[in-house]
Order: sequence, then C-alpha cells, then structure tokens
Amino acid sequence: MSVTVIDVRERVMARNDEIARDVRQRLEAARTASFNFISSPGAGKTLLLERTLAALNEEMRVAVVTGDCQTQNDADRLARHTDRLVQAVVTHGGCHLDARQIETALASIDLHETDLLLIENVGNLVCPAAWDLGESAKVVLFSITEGEDKPLKYPKAFQVAKVAVLTKLDLLPHLDFDLAGAIRNARDVNPLLRFFFLSARSGAGMEDWLAFLRARVTERRRTVPA
Amino acid sequence: MSVTVIDVRERVMARNDEIARDVRQRLEAARTASFNFISSPGAGKTLLLERTLAALNEEMRVAVVTGDCQTQNDADRLARHTDRLVQAVVTHGGCHLDARQIETALASIDLHETDLLLIENVGNLVCPAAWDLGESAKVVLFSITEGEDKPLKYPKAFQVAKVAVLTKLDLLPHLDFDLAGAIRNARDVNPLLRFFFLSARSGAGMEDWLAFLRARVTERRRTVPA
Repeated sequence: MSVTVIDVRERVMARNDEIARDVRQRLEAARTASFNFISSPGAGKTLLLERTLAALNEEMRVAVVTGDCQTQNDADRLARHTDRLVQAVVTHGGCHLDARQIETALASIDLHETDLLLIENVGNLVCPAAWDLGESAKVVLFSITEGEDKPLKYPKAFQVAKVAVLTKLDLLPHLDFDLAGAIRNARDVNPLLRFFFLSARSGAGMEDWLAFLRARVTERRRTVPA
Repeated sequence: MSVTVIDVRERVMARNDEIARDVRQRLEAARTASFNFISSPGAGKTLLLERTLAALNEEMRVAVVTGDCQTQNDADRLARHTDRLVQAVVTHGGCHLDARQIETALASIDLHETDLLLIENVGNLVCPAAWDLGESAKVVLFSITEGEDKPLKYPKAFQVAKVAVLTKLDLLPHLDFDLAGAIRNARDVNPLLRFFFLSARSGAGMEDWLAFLRARVTERRRTVPA
C-alpha cells in the first residue's frame, strides 16, 4: 500500500510543480517579485508582513496572499495596511499552501499592476518546504525563542530558502539563545543562505530587510522577461 | 485524481487507527499512562520533558519516545536524565509520528516495567493532531511567544488535546501577550481543555504539572485492565 501512497504523492507533487512553473512564468512575465514566507506558528510572519506593507505600500504596489488552517485573521490584520485586496486562503486543516491555491488567488490580482507579491504560508516549518508555489524565493523565518537548533532539526525549510530572517531579536537579553550557533547551524544546512536579523516589534533591523526587498523589486523590473 | 488521494489517505488513516487501538490496549493492559506532546517547533517540548524526567525519574519508571524530522538531538538531551532507553524516531522529513512508529518503538520497551510513557511528537502544530498514536491523552503545548491567537488558527490540535500547557511564562513581562485572551481562545475551540501554565526554565508552575502526571499514573495503576 505504501507504494501506492508514494505514487499518488508523486503525481500530486508533479502536478503541483507544473502549476508552479506556470505561476512562475506569469510572475516573471509581469516582472513581479514574489516571496513565500515559511515558519513555525507564531514566529512572527504576520507582524513582519504588517510592518513591511506599512513601510512599502506608498512606494510600490504590493499584493498579499495569506494561508491559514482556519480563520482569516492574518489577512484581516494585513488588510489594514493597504487598500489593495489581501487574499486569504483558508486550508481547513491543510498543512501548507500549494501552487493551485496561488494560481486561483492570482485570478483576482492584476500582476501587471503588482511589483511585489508576498505569500504568507501556513505556520508549519515542515510541510510547506516541500511545495513550490512559483515564487521568486522562499524566506524562512525563525524566532530566537525557538532555539538555535531549529535549522538542524528542520533542515528542509532552510535548504529550500534563499533568505533566513531571525525574528524577535528584542527578546535576546531575556533568553539563553546562541546567535552565532544559530547562524552556524543554518549555514551548515545551506551555506548560501542570506541572513536578516530583526525585531518587527522594535523596528531594529527593518531597514536592511526593506532595502533587500526594494533591491529585488528593482532588479525584477529591469529583467527582460523570457 | 483528488478522489484517489482521499481514498488512499483514508486507508492509511484507517490502518493507523487500527494499530493505535492495539497500542492503546497494550498500554492499558500494562497500566502505563502515556502522553503525546504536540506543539510548534521550539515551543519547549524537550525542555519540559527534560525537567519532567529529572523530577519523576527517581519515583516512577518513565519511558520516552521522541520524533524528529532530522537528528536525534532531543533523544540525546533526554537520555541525560534517565538510565532507561530513550528512543529516537527520525522521520526523515516526515511531519508527524504515526502509530506504526510507536508500535515499533514499543518492541524495545517492557511496558510492564513502565509507569509513564512520554511521546514527543515532531514539532508541528498541524499534522500530528490528525494521528492517533494510542496514547492516553494528547498534550498541546504553546509558548506565550507564539501569540494568543494560536488556538483559533490551529484549532485541531487544541480540539484533540485533553491538556494544554502554556510555556515560557518567564517571558511574560517582555511580551504583549494576552493571557486571558489565550485561555478564552483555547476554551472556544475546546471547553474541556485542562490548563497548565509554566516556565520549565524558571521552574514556575512545574509542581502542578508534576502533580497532574503523578495523579494520572496512580489512577492508571488502580485501573483494572479490560
């Protein structure tokens, strides 16, 4: 029976990857930069996206898709920071977003009027890592309250990401957290990972993060689509 | 194709539930109390289990099974607190433990010499909630750093649990965390949930938690197996 399961899973994954390729092509053709945010529940994805939206919303056109097991709380929180449509995908217990859900969400987004697409995945450091959504890059967040061993214990999310954001840095004085060890652990599983350290709450480190997003959007605009 | 997926998944779940029933019967026959700990990565499962083992190891016979995507770090940490075998199940990316893995682990545990079985699931607040392992009860942990909305956003884990443990309480002065709101949210999804509030780091709240486990073990010893 396990062979059947694997076959079905492989077919589902293969179909997902096809759709993700289409999504990626559409995003590239529209020169929209896009990021897929992956983390544990409560690592601070929504707060980071709130602060990011509030900071960038005046200077560029940002679209948002949020994934949640239940509720559209995240979408409601984010919608306060933009006049544009924030799309909520409620997975009803599903543990990750898939490319089909992004494809469906894109039907309501004019990509040619969108510079940056932010996708907030379901809070789960395991399953979302396996699913390509067609994004430009995956961003893995982890909170310093989670401990410095997370990259070793959940390596896949750190391997598939291009960017790691260490969040809740304002809590550092109150924790026994080994920052150097965390970076070393993350680089052990992915030496090319680019790091940001920030507290969305205090604002520390936000400028570097915003500069990175601005640069990616500028770069994407300059790209001649295939 | 999606129908096929559901069929296969249902068969896999049905088979899991059969094995879980066997596991449960064996645990009951041996009068072993058992708890399946579910939480996000980094909510403090391992530290709570370390402190629990250190406190109870002299007075009762405790067995431990840990599930991890990669590494056996948690098992190594826990093994320091007991002379008994601590079993590591490395799921190689798998997002939850299943009953078959517990059945396999039990082959190396003499249940008649075990009062309490602690199962540390993979760090994931979504998928493990769907899998019965044959345990007496599921315990959902959530850290106050994750925010008070977690029970609403990940209701399944809170619905299937009998006990909720709110961890990292020592950080309360440094966070904007609404404790009353968190309890209200959890009770909204499961009115029968029993709560513990603790900091494994400071030791605050540990006595209540240990008293609860002692009572469950005593209760189980008194039960006449079917």
